[in-house]
Amino acid sequence: MSTLTLYYAPGTCAQAVRIALHEAGAPHELVRLDLAANEQRSPSYLAINPKGRVPALVTEHGVLSETSALLLYVAQRFPQARLAPLDDPFALARMQELHSFLASTVHIAHAHRPRASRWADEPEAQAAMQRKVPANMRECFAVIERHYLANQDKGPWVMGEQFTVADGYLFTVAGWLKSDGVDINEFARVAAHSRRVAERPAVQRALA
Amino acid sequence: MSTLTLYYAPGTCAQAVRIALHEAGAPHELVRLDLAANEQRSPSYLAINPKGRVPALVTEHGVLSETSALLLYVAQRFPQARLAPLDDPFALARMQELHSFLASTVHIAHAHRPRASRWADEPEAQAAMQRKVPANMRECFAVIERHYLANQDKGPWVMGEQFTVADGYLFTVAGWLKSDGVDINEFARVAAHSRRVAERPAVQRALA
Repeated sequence: MSTLTLYYAPGTCAQAVRIALHEAGAPHELVRLDLAANEQRSPSYLAINPKGRVPALVTEHGVLSETSALLLYVAQRFPQARLAPLDDPFALARMQELHSFLASTVHIAHAHRPRASRWADEPEAQAAMQRKVPANMRECFAVIERHYLANQDKGPWVMGEQFTVADGYLFTVAGWLKSDGVDINEFARVAAHSRRVAERPAVQRALA
Repeated sequence: MSTLTLYYAPGTCAQAVRIALHEAGAPHELVRLDLAANEQRSPSYLAINPKGRVPALVTEHGVLSETSALLLYVAQRFPQARLAPLDDPFALARMQELHSFLASTVHIAHAHRPRASRWADEPEAQAAMQRKVPANMRECFAVIERHYLANQDKGPWVMGEQFTVADGYLFTVAGWLKSDGVDINEFARVAAHSRRVAERPAVQRALA
C-alpha cells in the first residue's frame, strides 16, 4: 500500500486528519505549510489543491481535500481500525451530519475571527464579525453539548461505544474555543470528551 | 419500508434532498416550513431538529439533518438507484469533498447575503458582507468550473458517467447565482450542467 501525503498547517482542522491517520495506523508523510507566509496560495500548492486550503491528502488515485472527505476516506481505507460505522447507513449518515455541522457551522463561526476578511473588505465590518464570534461559538457548542453529546449513557464517544474519526474532529474544533474567548468548561460534556480524546496514545502521537 | 418525511423550505438546499428522493424513487412525505414566519425556530420543529435549520429527514431510526448527510443516506438506502459510488472509497470521498465544498464554502459565501445577521449585528457590517457576495460566489464557481467540472470528457455528470446526488446539490446551489448577482453563463460548464440536470424527469417532479 502506497504512502499517503498530508498537507497541513498547525492550528487548523488538518489536525483531525492527522489524528485519524494515527488512529488508523496509516503510513503517511507530512508536508507543513506556513499560512503566515501564504504558502497555501503558492503556484506549487495550488497545483495540488486549487482551493488553496489545508488539509489536502495525496493518494495514489489523486488528491482529496475537505476534512470530512478525508476522514471518510481514512475510515474506509483502513476498515480494521473501525473508525466509522461503515456497515450502518443511518449511523454513518449521523456521523456525516456531525462532520457537516462542524465544517459548515462551527468552523465557519470560528473563522469569522481569524478570516473575517473573506467575507467583508472593510476593517469595521471585520471587527463587527469578530465581536460576534464568542456568542456564535457558544451557540454551536450548546448544540453539541445538548444534542450530539446527549446520549453519554451509550458510550464515552460521540457515536457511542466506538471511537470514530468524528471524535478527533470534535476535539480539534473544541480546541479553538479558548482562542475564541470561550471557556470549554462552560460545556461539561465537551470538556470531558476533549480530556478523553487527549489521553489516547494515537492522539498524543498525532499532536507531537 | 417505512416512509421518510422531509422538512424543507423553498429556495433552500433542501431542494437537493428532494431531487435525491425523486431520483431514488423513495416514498416520502413533505412538510413545508415558512422561514419568513420563523417556523424553523418553533418549539415543535426544534424538537425535531435542535439546530433550527432545514432540511431534516425523519426516518424510522431517528432524525437526520445536514444536506450532505441526507444525500449520503438516500444514496445508501436506495443503492439500486446508483446515486453514489458506494463501492469505491476514493470516488465516494471525492463526492463527499464536493458536498463539503458546496456546504462549507459555496453555501456560506451565498448565505452572507440573506443571512448576514448570523455573523454581525451592525447593519453597516451586514451591508459590507452583502457587497462581497458576488465576488465570493464568482470565486467559488470558478473552482467548480475549472476543477470539479474539468473532466467533462469522462461523462456529462460531476462524478463522470453516472448521475449522483452531487449533481442535484450542485444544480441547487448554482440556482442561487442569479439572486446573488452573478450570471450563470459566466461559467459555461456550470450552465450546461444545470441545463442537463433540469431536463431530468425526476428533477422536474422534485421541483413541481
